[in-house]
Amino acid sequence: MEAALLRGAQWIKRSSSCFLKAQNIRHASTKQRALRLPETLRSIIETCATGDSVTASGWVRSVRIQKRIAFAEIADGSTLRGIQVIIDDPQMASKLTTGCSVEISGNLAESPGREQSKEIQATKISIIGKADAESYPLQKKRHTLEFLREIGHLRPRSQTIGAVTRLRDHAETGLHKFFHDNEFVRIHTPALTANDCEGGGETFAVTTLGSENPATDFFGKKVNLTVSGQLHLEVFAGAFKRVYNFNQAFRAEPSQTGRHLSEFWMVEGECAFVKDLETLIDVEESMVRSTTQYLVDNAGNDLDFFLHKNDSLTRLVKRLTDTEPYACISYTEAIDILQRADEKVKFSFKPQWGKDLQSEHERYLATTHFCGPVFVTDYPADIKSFYMLPNPDSRTVACTDLLVPGPCELLGGSLREHSYGRLKEKIEGLGFEQGSLDWYLDMRKYGSTPHGGFGMGFERYIQMLTGLDSVRDLISFPRHAGRCQY
Amino acid sequence: MEAALLRGAQWIKRSSSCFLKAQNIRHASTKQRALRLPETLRSIIETCATGDSVTASGWVRSVRIQKRIAFAEIADGSTLRGIQVIIDDPQMASKLTTGCSVEISGNLAESPGREQSKEIQATKISIIGKADAESYPLQKKRHTLEFLREIGHLRPRSQTIGAVTRLRDHAETGLHKFFHDNEFVRIHTPALTANDCEGGGETFAVTTLGSENPATDFFGKKVNLTVSGQLHLEVFAGAFKRVYNFNQAFRAEPSQTGRHLSEFWMVEGECAFVKDLETLIDVEESMVRSTTQYLVDNAGNDLDFFLHKNDSLTRLVKRLTDTEPYACISYTEAIDILQRADEKVKFSFKPQWGKDLQSEHERYLATTHFCGPVFVTDYPADIKSFYMLPNPDSRTVACTDLLVPGPCELLGGSLREHSYGRLKEKIEGLGFEQGSLDWYLDMRKYGSTPHGGFGMGFERYIQMLTGLDSVRDLISFPRHAGRCQY
Repeated sequence: MEAALLRGAQWIKRSSSCFLKAQNIRHASTKQRALRLPETLRSIIETCATGDSVTASGWVRSVRIQKRIAFAEIADGSTLRGIQVIIDDPQMASKLTTGCSVEISGNLAESPGREQSKEIQATKISIIGKADAESYPLQKKRHTLEFLREIGHLRPRSQTIGAVTRLRDHAETGLHKFFHDNEFVRIHTPALTANDCEGGGETFAVTTLGSENPATDFFGKKVNLTVSGQLHLEVFAGAFKRVYNFNQAFRAEPSQTGRHLSEFWMVEGECAFVKDLETLIDVEESMVRSTTQYLVDNAGNDLDFFLHKNDSLTRLVKRLTDTEPYACISYTEAIDILQRADEKVKFSFKPQWGKDLQSEHERYLATTHFCGPVFVTDYPADIKSFYMLPNPDSRTVACTDLLVPGPCELLGGSLREHSYGRLKEKIEGLGFEQGSLDWYLDMRKYGSTPHGGFGMGFERYIQMLTGLDSVRDLISFPRHAGRCQY
Repeated sequence: MEAALLRGAQWIKRSSSCFLKAQNIRHASTKQRALRLPETLRSIIETCATGDSVTASGWVRSVRIQKRIAFAEIADGSTLRGIQVIIDDPQMASKLTTGCSVEISGNLAESPGREQSKEIQATKISIIGKADAESYPLQKKRHTLEFLREIGHLRPRSQTIGAVTRLRDHAETGLHKFFHDNEFVRIHTPALTANDCEGGGETFAVTTLGSENPATDFFGKKVNLTVSGQLHLEVFAGAFKRVYNFNQAFRAEPSQTGRHLSEFWMVEGECAFVKDLETLIDVEESMVRSTTQYLVDNAGNDLDFFLHKNDSLTRLVKRLTDTEPYACISYTEAIDILQRADEKVKFSFKPQWGKDLQSEHERYLATTHFCGPVFVTDYPADIKSFYMLPNPDSRTVACTDLLVPGPCELLGGSLREHSYGRLKEKIEGLGFEQGSLDWYLDMRKYGSTPHGGFGMGFERYIQMLTGLDSVRDLISFPRHAGRCQY
């Protein structure tokens, strides 16, 4: 080891202008030194004082040039509203166009407007990257979400997608915080899987061949994209007691509504040594409550962007975070409520014990009847998955769906069958490929425990809080039947 | 809305034993109430006092029965070592086998042993799920990592995979903390993508047909699993200034060494308005330093499990977290060092300017020459990707790899070409499908900024800290050529 080299690492001289005396700069550094990245607007607004000389960079959202003064709004994604720049010399502003990137030096001042507390009085403006005013598609005027989807690579600059993106980030942080505060371990469950338990026909195959002979394909067998990490998570719950994941799931759902994505994010939790559904429902409810509270506390501006003037959404967020337990009824009670309502409401599908709840039924329960979140428990065994634990009545299983206004079904969970004998019988009866679930059975053979878990669609959660109609506006790059841009 | 129902949600009576007066229990709840999950061993060890009566659940790791006393070690994944249970009545212990799940009541006592500070003096033992002593594959004796891979569904119970899993969880948390502390926004970049810029032949196709006509396939076009989220992240950097992701990436790498996985996790960062490589290297170095420091502070036991008796690993962790900047040399300097070393070392591949560094070269630089992390910058343009920003010498590009002992290449980053004209020329010269990268070019047309980013293989990072040879032991369910179990 050449200590001299280690201490005195030399930078190659790349150009006279960008050549820094890196050796010195890097040696002055300390463990906690701030990164030398250009400041975010949020940091300027929150940490600089009126009168401070600042340099702000971002993208121009709008320009308004008057006779003696010009105004520009610039944004950089760190805040909902960006910052207003006052330009005394309209000549200086004449080259600014919506969408161009700029670096602005000036002084921070109190803003007389109501929307922001601070503005910049510019002394110097540098255009970093132009944006042709004629062809730039994202003008100041209000665009529809449908139009924004057509320019998916530029829409992150829009206020709505900006707010959604920051909400997603905070919501994920809130979820991690909930699970870690409660001693769950995050498991990185795989996207590629050889089992196809839940998917039915709606899975994507993964191949390097395009051939139809899995034996000669990359993995030597048929491999799909996962539809759920549950089975893999159960493996880890059999060692870590409390586990969760936060992953993509994939469904080749052919429907063309705004309710489904082919690739979406899901958070799933699984707990060992859990004997009753009530305990599981507590976990689910706490997760939703504490994550929503985290958003109220940490992403207030972005949340308010959606709650603003929307009373029912505001009430819902209040309801989700108050101390009152969420409503909870059995499937049997739900059918009863729906049948009584049918006389007035006239559902397209008659509510009937033994049949799955339709969207219109779920919507009625969450939106009309309960006006808020409602757990529905103990569905008929015949319409639910093979791994769910039967109730003593043998007709129903120990499961629950959480219905909410907006996306309706927000999460689903159940206790899992933990008896080796009963699960084996079930699997054999369903005609799974011989031996393909031996590993899943093994978990019931060696130190099985009563356990249960749940999964929540992340985009549906965001949909509930934003009130947006289509999940296609709630994910960075939406994928659905016939569409995979970028 | 029926307020009475909302307030007095009734539980369906599922069985007399598990029927809880849920209404009352759930109404006693407060916003901050603890979940009613069985306690983790960690929580018992950390929060209960000697003499406390406790109930502990977990899986038996070993049993030792003597004439008048028996010892069992139980674990639940919440701690590295589990807890020792003292059983006064050997009869009571006779049914315990390695692997069975148990619930143990007893009193917490000081432990005379050195490994743990507390133990449980059992008063009652309930076996929850048996494990047949003859066939249970995970016995107390030390198993090889190769053997553990054959029982991937049980290996999470082993001490090594347990420590790896918790390290991964903490490392991810440390990464999120670093990025959020520095105002980065997390973007959920997609796994499914229509572009194939970096992958060459090594991408997985995604299909619902198995047919070879993409036009009739699910998305109406050829769709792959992503090899990197960089291009998608650049889109968001063009709106949010500082962005990152933490996602799976996929490569159909046919090699059968322990260096490659077909599905692995990657963290990528991208920053707009960044003009020089030094700034980017600062971000990369800070990320590695602060994440590693986070592990030292929060996952000490699990880290020590790997550092124990491994002096070079211990030195490496110290080096990664100390205040001294990491070594930094240009590719040209690296070639010079390697050529001088070649006389002694006799590399299989002669180091030569213009050719990529081989693993043996990277290993020599990180392990022998610098004995620690070293950034290598400014590689020849011809061996690097089309999107990298050329240096003024036009022969090299503004990029860097971070080499470390162990996995060698830990991360790679670069400034990106931000000029529309130059990038267009480059893309046309490379023969990409006409129009397929128009969206990527658009980013240079509308408010382009000098920018750069990097990607770090997450399993490689964990490999560096654990010193384990094969990345197959560092991920929940490894996927590689010919293998996709579970």
